Amino acid sequence: MDFGTEFKPVTVQPQEIEGLSFQMITEELGEHSFSALEYPIVQRIIHASADFELGRSLVFHPGAIEAGIHAMLQGKPIIADVRMVEAGIAKERIQRYGGEVRVHIADPDVVDEAKALGTTRAIIATRKACAQSPGGIYVIGNAPTALLELIRLVKAGAAQPGLVIGMPVGFVSAAESKDELRKLDIPYITNIGRKGGSTIVVAAVNALSLLAVRRAAGWLG
Amino acid sequence: MDFGTEFKPVTVQPQEIEGLSFQMITEELGEHSFSALEYPIVQRIIHASADFELGRSLVFHPGAIEAGIHAMLQGKPIIADVRMVEAGIAKERIQRYGGEVRVHIADPDVVDEAKALGTTRAIIATRKACAQSPGGIYVIGNAPTALLELIRLVKAGAAQPGLVIGMPVGFVSAAESKDELRKLDIPYITNIGRKGGSTIVVAAVNALSLLAVRRAAGWLG
Repeated sequence: MDFGTEFKPVTVQPQEIEGLSFQMITEELGEHSFSALEYPIVQRIIHASADFELGRSLVFHPGAIEAGIHAMLQGKPIIADVRMVEAGIAKERIQRYGGEVRVHIADPDVVDEAKALGTTRAIIATRKACAQSPGGIYVIGNAPTALLELIRLVKAGAAQPGLVIGMPVGFVSAAESKDELRKLDIPYITNIGRKGGSTIVVAAVNALSLLAVRRAAGWLG
Repeated sequence: MDFGTEFKPVTVQPQEIEGLSFQMITEELGEHSFSALEYPIVQRIIHASADFELGRSLVFHPGAIEAGIHAMLQGKPIIADVRMVEAGIAKERIQRYGGEVRVHIADPDVVDEAKALGTTRAIIATRKACAQSPGGIYVIGNAPTALLELIRLVKAGAAQPGLVIGMPVGFVSAAESKDELRKLDIPYITNIGRKGGSTIVVAAVNALSLLAVRRAAGWLG
């Protein structure tokens, strides 16, 4: 297709664009120590960010991928920290196994309680999610306070997440909240440093649900 | 607040977290050549990505910010390339002036036509937007083909965007599509390189709408 530009794209076929991108990522990334199950998640995060530094900063709890696949195939809910994350998750692959995506950040009761307590909506939304969605997949790309509150509840025995995808982005407490997550012996996917965000955690969820579909089809070991 | 972690956050007050973050960004960024109207957009993009390299890669057409403020205060529509972008835009500040956010990527007629023509939904969605939303603010964080098609339509005289926020992320044609955008003499906000994405363009729109509110209140020059 000719866009009338000096630059002529190699392809405008969606499947080809993705395939080419994934090849380029594998070539440029070169050597790494991610496992065969971890790599598809790293690859999709680099695809969503064009950021190899971010990709290399990912850290997986040893049981994370298996726990995530298990939770998805059991139809456990996915709890998104914000609406952008909810919007980005490929729903069909979640719903196929009875799961759904929940987001509490704008629930009227959450907004009211946060105001009354003078704290973040993210903290109150995390409390609500832990009460309503035990065993769920907790996806946090934004507020470090959501991740810190989840860590607090896990330590207190009040939350048993199926998997935590914790990659809040930011300057105040974001890197530190992830340092604390890595001290826990629960299934988590996280990264080292300040980077993260909605598009990054969405990439992780969508890569994981592709793995779940492959497992269900008997294509994974 | 004590999360039971070794790390104790300085604050969990949303306003304080944002203020502290913005201070840190200004200090770490140091010298730059962005104008007083451009800088709030750079700052919010760094806030959303924790990526100074990305912030420094931003390029503004000289008339971009004024054109964007004008379009917003005129209630021109904002056209988002994907649902995640739509979800992330702070709607209240857009609706205040009669504007709204539109997204066509999943419209049934767009899906059908893309399939029939063997091309991307992004291209067809761009054509639909240009026909329906002249003078709008076009926000592209994902498909380079959407940006290339918009460039083609502008060159052909078939599109007159009020502003183009063009920062598709990716490996195939993304950087090149932005190189082509920078050759046009129309209002644009873009960046150099592969990086970009939904959270980045959302940060730009939300920073711009804050500027529009300040202009309407008489707080900007």
